[in-house]
Amino acid sequence: MTDAAHSYPVSARNRVKRAHERGRYDHETVHAILDAAMLCHVSYVIDGQPYATPTIHWREGDMLYWHGSSASRMLRHLRAGMPACLTVSHLDGLVLARSGFNHSVNYRAAMCFGTAVLIDDPDEKARALVGVVDRFYPGRTAGLRAITEQETKATTVIGMRIDEASAKIRAKGVGDDDEDLDFPAWAGVIPVRTVIGAAETCPKIPAGLSRPASLDIYAEGTALDTALTVTQRLYEA
Amino acid sequence: MTDAAHSYPVSARNRVKRAHERGRYDHETVHAILDAAMLCHVSYVIDGQPYATPTIHWREGDMLYWHGSSASRMLRHLRAGMPACLTVSHLDGLVLARSGFNHSVNYRAAMCFGTAVLIDDPDEKARALVGVVDRFYPGRTAGLRAITEQETKATTVIGMRIDEASAKIRAKGVGDDDEDLDFPAWAGVIPVRTVIGAAETCPKIPAGLSRPASLDIYAEGTALDTALTVTQRLYEA
Repeated sequence: MTDAAHSYPVSARNRVKRAHERGRYDHETVHAILDAAMLCHVSYVIDGQPYATPTIHWREGDMLYWHGSSASRMLRHLRAGMPACLTVSHLDGLVLARSGFNHSVNYRAAMCFGTAVLIDDPDEKARALVGVVDRFYPGRTAGLRAITEQETKATTVIGMRIDEASAKIRAKGVGDDDEDLDFPAWAGVIPVRTVIGAAETCPKIPAGLSRPASLDIYAEGTALDTALTVTQRLYEA
Repeated sequence: MTDAAHSYPVSARNRVKRAHERGRYDHETVHAILDAAMLCHVSYVIDGQPYATPTIHWREGDMLYWHGSSASRMLRHLRAGMPACLTVSHLDGLVLARSGFNHSVNYRAAMCFGTAVLIDDPDEKARALVGVVDRFYPGRTAGLRAITEQETKATTVIGMRIDEASAKIRAKGVGDDDEDLDFPAWAGVIPVRTVIGAAETCPKIPAGLSRPASLDIYAEGTALDTALTVTQRLYEA
């Protein structure tokens, strides 16, 4: 995993400092965390003020994409490119220890650094607007009402090549100090999972139109991270 | 909800621009979104570079707290105070429409702006280090091995008074254009929930020590946002 060809470079910006033994920089680990989520938080700076904006992201190789309205406050800053940080986090469990200090959470997080730019090349933008649907719902765009010119204009697509990235993972039991193990407090892990519920069909769907089999990936009870990992692989294939 | 005494002020920084009808500024809505989550993303700037750092947060009135290691890259910037944005987001559902453009997600998000400062007053810091445990696990600190001076030193507590905030919520069905309703594509909402799993007791727990009833709030199958809302209310009471 220290193979430079398969890892992101490490600098002061992305080096994991706290609990550095949890840090990883290889593409496979970083991408797996990104691909298992739909929601990310993008951080950028306007007039010295940082923003952490939640949004949907999708990935093609080392490129991350997200989109917004053309009325977004970011837009006027994007033409020249702006430094950004896109972070994806999964909360996997609550870790209760015998001391307050050793309480923790299990999680998977990836922080990606790069320069966010406006995607205004018409072909790249058109591909991205298919990607944002088909990456999550395999093959879905082909069966939808086609996008209009006005809709394309109303949508800002933003791209960022990942220059540096780090992943940080905690996936284990309680990390109490040895001398605390006999302390009479319950300790353990309370797992947390994000799962799919029962699909609610739009009441205005014409009679006889049923949910396509391609959406079985999102069957009730499926873990969201699993469904999103599967759909990313289908999108790449 | 436009009552100024119960709302955060609105400026260019926190005004909801895109889909502004989804925006809310009242304390109750903002706090409910914050309190329903354990994980937030804090955005700050160091040497022009924005960071979106995932962390655990907790709230007391208009004060938000989070913590980190004293080795954190933020620490040296915090003594003077640094502008920050703390965002909490909940993904509640995937919204599949008859056009790509009308695809969306159901979500609840709160963005809070203020100046992050180091909490170095010994009393406030001590109270915060109890809060980070007891806010999530009611009354738990009293039954834990007491915190040591070294542990207190090793922990950085950061506080931010919420100067401005906005909430943004989408909680509805598919928003297709009227003229698309007969288009033969399945449309609907696929709900997403984050739930508690079965607790895994630390294998080194002394025989006869069982999970305290106060943790029944985190019973298997409970929605995480519900459990966290309940524990915040107990902490405030």
